[in-house]
Amino acid sequence: MDLGSEDRLHTWLRKQLSDQGFDRLGDDGAILPPTGPWTVTVDHQIAGVHFPSDLDPARIARRSLAVNLSDLAAMGAKPRFAFLALSCPSTFDSRRFFSALMTACKRYGVELAGGDLARSCHVAAVLTVVGQRAPRGRWVRRSSGRVGDRLWLGGPVGLASLGQQLLERGASIVGRRVSLPPGLALTEASQKLARRTVRIHLLPEPQINLGVWLGRRRRAAAIDISDGLAMDLHRLCRESQVGAEISASQLPVARRFEELCRALELDPLQVLLGGGEDYVLLFALPPRLRPPATYGCSPLGRLVDGRRLSLIRNDGTQPLPVLGWDHFRTRD
Amino acid sequence: MDLGSEDRLHTWLRKQLSDQGFDRLGDDGAILPPTGPWTVTVDHQIAGVHFPSDLDPARIARRSLAVNLSDLAAMGAKPRFAFLALSCPSTFDSRRFFSALMTACKRYGVELAGGDLARSCHVAAVLTVVGQRAPRGRWVRRSSGRVGDRLWLGGPVGLASLGQQLLERGASIVGRRVSLPPGLALTEASQKLARRTVRIHLLPEPQINLGVWLGRRRRAAAIDISDGLAMDLHRLCRESQVGAEISASQLPVARRFEELCRALELDPLQVLLGGGEDYVLLFALPPRLRPPATYGCSPLGRLVDGRRLSLIRNDGTQPLPVLGWDHFRTRD
Repeated sequence: MDLGSEDRLHTWLRKQLSDQGFDRLGDDGAILPPTGPWTVTVDHQIAGVHFPSDLDPARIARRSLAVNLSDLAAMGAKPRFAFLALSCPSTFDSRRFFSALMTACKRYGVELAGGDLARSCHVAAVLTVVGQRAPRGRWVRRSSGRVGDRLWLGGPVGLASLGQQLLERGASIVGRRVSLPPGLALTEASQKLARRTVRIHLLPEPQINLGVWLGRRRRAAAIDISDGLAMDLHRLCRESQVGAEISASQLPVARRFEELCRALELDPLQVLLGGGEDYVLLFALPPRLRPPATYGCSPLGRLVDGRRLSLIRNDGTQPLPVLGWDHFRTRD
Repeated sequence: MDLGSEDRLHTWLRKQLSDQGFDRLGDDGAILPPTGPWTVTVDHQIAGVHFPSDLDPARIARRSLAVNLSDLAAMGAKPRFAFLALSCPSTFDSRRFFSALMTACKRYGVELAGGDLARSCHVAAVLTVVGQRAPRGRWVRRSSGRVGDRLWLGGPVGLASLGQQLLERGASIVGRRVSLPPGLALTEASQKLARRTVRIHLLPEPQINLGVWLGRRRRAAAIDISDGLAMDLHRLCRESQVGAEISASQLPVARRFEELCRALELDPLQVLLGGGEDYVLLFALPPRLRPPATYGCSPLGRLVDGRRLSLIRNDGTQPLPVLGWDHFRTRD
């Protein structure tokens, strides 16, 4: 099972760290001190890698925070503090960036508590966010899955990655207005979906409340599937030491998603399983539990004995391929 | 009093944050939750900005950690956890970087607890470090200085900035061997000092034990003078709402420092006051307290009433200029 070069480096790192008596790298956030109640997570947002180089500073700020908060959601934590390391050229509108960041922080109850500023030839924002275990809550870990658990998805998948494809092919956004790349053969309804995918890519909505709900269950496992559903399901299963069966027909697909994939010459299933950039939670719950309908979750499959991950299709069952983002392999 | 554009942005940020009921930006680290016992600090190390682009990955790792731990030292905290956001090109030797980082972490009792990896065209390491208030200790704040306190420096100043100058003029390091730029008219003894300054620049020694000692006093104020003695003294005085008098003759100067400055066509006093990159502590203590001799500290002056900062020289007293690094002004 090859989980790509990032996971190989990660496996090597975990080996080195556990040799030193340290090992805290298996989840979306690290729990501090070992018994909590804090969890810390760090994420990059780099111009030209994670977002278009000419993106509005306000959007960069909001996206940076949302992406990080999604990791806290996967831990079942409430966001509390953020630290920003911002490097940017002198032409960058730092005040616009900070104003938007502070507004977004306020919305999520996060205090911007410190940071570091530096000059660089391109914009890179590294946010460190600190979350707190919810009162009467438990940590949600990748390793908490058990054989027989039901798998759920916190929302639709595939759209954000289509948005990213469109941006790479020349889509742009000014204010709320998205311009699509010329030459795409799209019906009016698909154009509307296409514009929505760009907005979803640029501003994911972290599933904080769903995460806190999961943290209040007796047991739940979760991961944020930003690197792609298939790769992140592999990670959850590896940490929980189980296999999984998911059903292609249960993948939550937006209307006109396939039409838009075809126009972009992309395979819909590949996009759903490996597109990445979906900041929704993939989680496992004991079979009798169901998430409240308000969170818009859909069932996806179940955890099974063994280490095999299978995709059930109309025409039979096949091994689930390891598709998804690997920051050290594909984003060169 | 113009503290440069970084401080202006900082002042604007603090105003925005305090309007929202947040204000935690006055120290080298942020204290979490508001009563402790944790403090968090974040720092960039960017190739071509903070260190030469071809620097050995192991040296980048050690320098990144040292620079961050110096901020914890200024808070009187013991280092506990580190989080790394590393972006680098595919040619970068990540394993060499991580091996050195883990060894350095072990040396200082720090656990590398998480991080994020991304591809980028140049190397940038952002470390977030978490420190803990020492048992029976207090936080050391920039704002704890009082009129009448004695000012101290934790070690010699100016050397690291000469090392940086030498690197910018073509000095290089392979293993422990420093090659100096050609064409410098230096005696053998000055060459030895020049080589030492390069090593000091590349690997500062964070004053953790001195910081913990300060944290065990009834009251102490401190700042890490990495942005330059004069600018950081201005910051400490602003937070403590006092003035200061320091004596040029008391500045701790290495033998042959002036000779090396002359060879580099630099004004020794400017280097001492504004060179920056000295990861030593500037601190204020009540007049009866003296740091233990083992820390190698030297007295520098005292905190006075009012807001004026003065430099006492043989030929009279003058206002202390605001000299030093401003990441948003000078490192373009």
